[in-house]
Amino acid sequence: MLPEVAAVPYRIVAMETHDIRFPTSRERAGSDAMNPDPDYSASYVVLRTDDGAEGHGFAFTIGRGNDVQTAAIRALEPYVLGRDAEDMGARYREMIGDSQLRWLGPEKGVMHMAVGAVVNALWDLKARRAGLPLWLLLAEMSPEQLVELLDLRYLSDALTRQDALDILRAAEPGRADRIERLRRHGYPAYATSPGWLGYSDDKLRRLCAQALADGFPMIKLKVGADLGDDRRRLRIAREVCGPGFPIAIDANQRWDVGAAIAWVRELAEFDPWWVEEPTSPDDVLGHAEIARAIAPIRVATGEHVQNRVIFKQMLRAGALGVLQLDAARVGGVNENLAILLLAAKHGVPVCPHAGGVGLCELVQHLAMFDFVAVSGSTENRMIEYVEHLHEHFVDPVVIKNGAYAAPGAPGFSAAMRPESIAQYTWRTT
Amino acid sequence: MLPEVAAVPYRIVAMETHDIRFPTSRERAGSDAMNPDPDYSASYVVLRTDDGAEGHGFAFTIGRGNDVQTAAIRALEPYVLGRDAEDMGARYREMIGDSQLRWLGPEKGVMHMAVGAVVNALWDLKARRAGLPLWLLLAEMSPEQLVELLDLRYLSDALTRQDALDILRAAEPGRADRIERLRRHGYPAYATSPGWLGYSDDKLRRLCAQALADGFPMIKLKVGADLGDDRRRLRIAREVCGPGFPIAIDANQRWDVGAAIAWVRELAEFDPWWVEEPTSPDDVLGHAEIARAIAPIRVATGEHVQNRVIFKQMLRAGALGVLQLDAARVGGVNENLAILLLAAKHGVPVCPHAGGVGLCELVQHLAMFDFVAVSGSTENRMIEYVEHLHEHFVDPVVIKNGAYAAPGAPGFSAAMRPESIAQYTWRTT
Repeated sequence: MLPEVAAVPYRIVAMETHDIRFPTSRERAGSDAMNPDPDYSASYVVLRTDDGAEGHGFAFTIGRGNDVQTAAIRALEPYVLGRDAEDMGARYREMIGDSQLRWLGPEKGVMHMAVGAVVNALWDLKARRAGLPLWLLLAEMSPEQLVELLDLRYLSDALTRQDALDILRAAEPGRADRIERLRRHGYPAYATSPGWLGYSDDKLRRLCAQALADGFPMIKLKVGADLGDDRRRLRIAREVCGPGFPIAIDANQRWDVGAAIAWVRELAEFDPWWVEEPTSPDDVLGHAEIARAIAPIRVATGEHVQNRVIFKQMLRAGALGVLQLDAARVGGVNENLAILLLAAKHGVPVCPHAGGVGLCELVQHLAMFDFVAVSGSTENRMIEYVEHLHEHFVDPVVIKNGAYAAPGAPGFSAAMRPESIAQYTWRTT
Repeated sequence: MLPEVAAVPYRIVAMETHDIRFPTSRERAGSDAMNPDPDYSASYVVLRTDDGAEGHGFAFTIGRGNDVQTAAIRALEPYVLGRDAEDMGARYREMIGDSQLRWLGPEKGVMHMAVGAVVNALWDLKARRAGLPLWLLLAEMSPEQLVELLDLRYLSDALTRQDALDILRAAEPGRADRIERLRRHGYPAYATSPGWLGYSDDKLRRLCAQALADGFPMIKLKVGADLGDDRRRLRIAREVCGPGFPIAIDANQRWDVGAAIAWVRELAEFDPWWVEEPTSPDDVLGHAEIARAIAPIRVATGEHVQNRVIFKQMLRAGALGVLQLDAARVGGVNENLAILLLAAKHGVPVCPHAGGVGLCELVQHLAMFDFVAVSGSTENRMIEYVEHLHEHFVDPVVIKNGAYAAPGAPGFSAAMRPESIAQYTWRTT
């Protein structure tokens, strides 16, 4: 069923999975209009090779169902055992192309997130073996090598192979300078931690002031549960941050199309920088209608956008002012490369979704690679930053002056500390 | 976490699941351009009450990953144990509304198909208790009761509660006559069995002639792997069936947008009745573009459309000439009621997807209910019919004169024979 692989210097001999859940609902960190009590969780996978190397990856969930997600990762075991991470285009296409597993999506939901976790683990393995942080490994690949990583099926009306090559070649001059800039200044971050719905006004005020003091160029507030609360909280944030300071708002899919337009208009006086997830992540036409109605306020979405086909349509329909890729929702680094190229082709800035468990650790690599080799710009681009759960990672993100410091350790920064894995492994009792 | 339920006459006390796989790939039944070797499978669930009643349901898969699907059904156990099937609107909304499980979709892929399986099992239970076949149970509910079953979130730009009531009330006159018509004449069927890609030309010719002799008003051929083969096979089918006889073609998502348009134009001389799944089921704008380009040939899709939000957009964009609902892809009877109402609102005929394992058994109830209480019409409407695997069902479909006979047995016709369950339960060895 699987094509044979050529002789390789090593083979993957084991896949371990772990169902890891943090009881974050106790403190209402992460609370928003649709997710009142998330328990941030990771369906975690470790690949081991016969020469002692490792690759780590995970899907992010918010609690219940993390066992289902882990079962989906296990179903991909035949695609990694006995194989390698040398030809990552082939590895990715084999997994999304399995005709039987494809029925469970195609390329969406649990099965696709599982592919993403395994693809990302393979990239972690590949980057560790190369002795490079993932962003730099990718940034040193040629346009031709990068294009070989893609699956362009269903994209040809928006992005051809030649388009992809043209974008990547246009960004080749200046790669070294931009790598140097990242090493010196990092990549801009914005702060979501002040704005969870479950926090008191006092805590909101204090955290807004702290975010400013920490040098973040933007903050984000959750909205959508109660209009009066939203107005009061936005007024507080605007008072603390001052006029003109970017304050984004995030409705977490709470509204229908008409309600989104009406609600955002009620908040327009507070000058929101963007409105995120105004409605169903599946509703391309709805996002486009909202974008037209609330302009110049921009629409942002992506953390729940299932794959490149939906992003393609969002971009073609003019629905997105900001594209929020997610490292662990789609089919891993390979599909995110296609998404970065689609965004570049349509001139839309990418501001990755992060937070959760380890999403900050992952997306920093993708945003930095984008800056070096795809868009070549950080203008209007920032990576979300949420401050919890980093202590569980071996190579946690480092934030300095409101920016992500460029990771230097080999790999994808995906590895969790063994003691955290042991402590938070879910036990059904 | 779950709301308490009021005192009820019975409670569900057990959920059984079974991973059932039929080795259909051996005979290439079911082979198409994307699915060369499906092993038709069911992730099967049985609910048992403390007073001895049962409800059966399943998700359909094509082999690998059926274990993942079964794990997803198991994750819904807290939503059925101790509960009942009295308030089916509440049961459905509880399951799709679980904020943690929702992260795994929302409302798409493995987790959503699991909701569909459990919701359908609850409907089977409810119909058995009522002593009615499901189609008749639904057809005897009032418009107000039916509207209470819906979740209209994200639909208000296309279908409001009032729209739904208006459609259902408009179809109230004549319900009894239409019930009588169904009992007398059944519901038109069309035949897919002649057209699998893996069949020889002789077998194709023989099965086309047989379909005509059996009284089917339409046949369908798989296309999309090789243009020369498609032209040869369509020529054979057209010769056998004669000019004007409806022959639909089905590409199973094989093409990009431009390729779909070009390929269908090459086949236009054979007068295809519709072209099914020309591209990614997620590509609303792509389907709309194809539909405009190949008119008057109609575009059909649905067996992989993940939920009502995608159908809403397909209808609003004018992408669909035919809507192919699937009984086991979306969130069960409740979501399919919303989809039938969306189709009626937009004047698009529904021709359900069937085949697989038990899909014929399920969708006949939905199509018949649509005829009685929603669209009120069978014009341009047919239910797909594929002749395999019915022998495993307790109450298999009955086809007479190219039509589905109205089921009379209580329930949703979902129950498999115990000996089939025992024989085809998957064992990992």
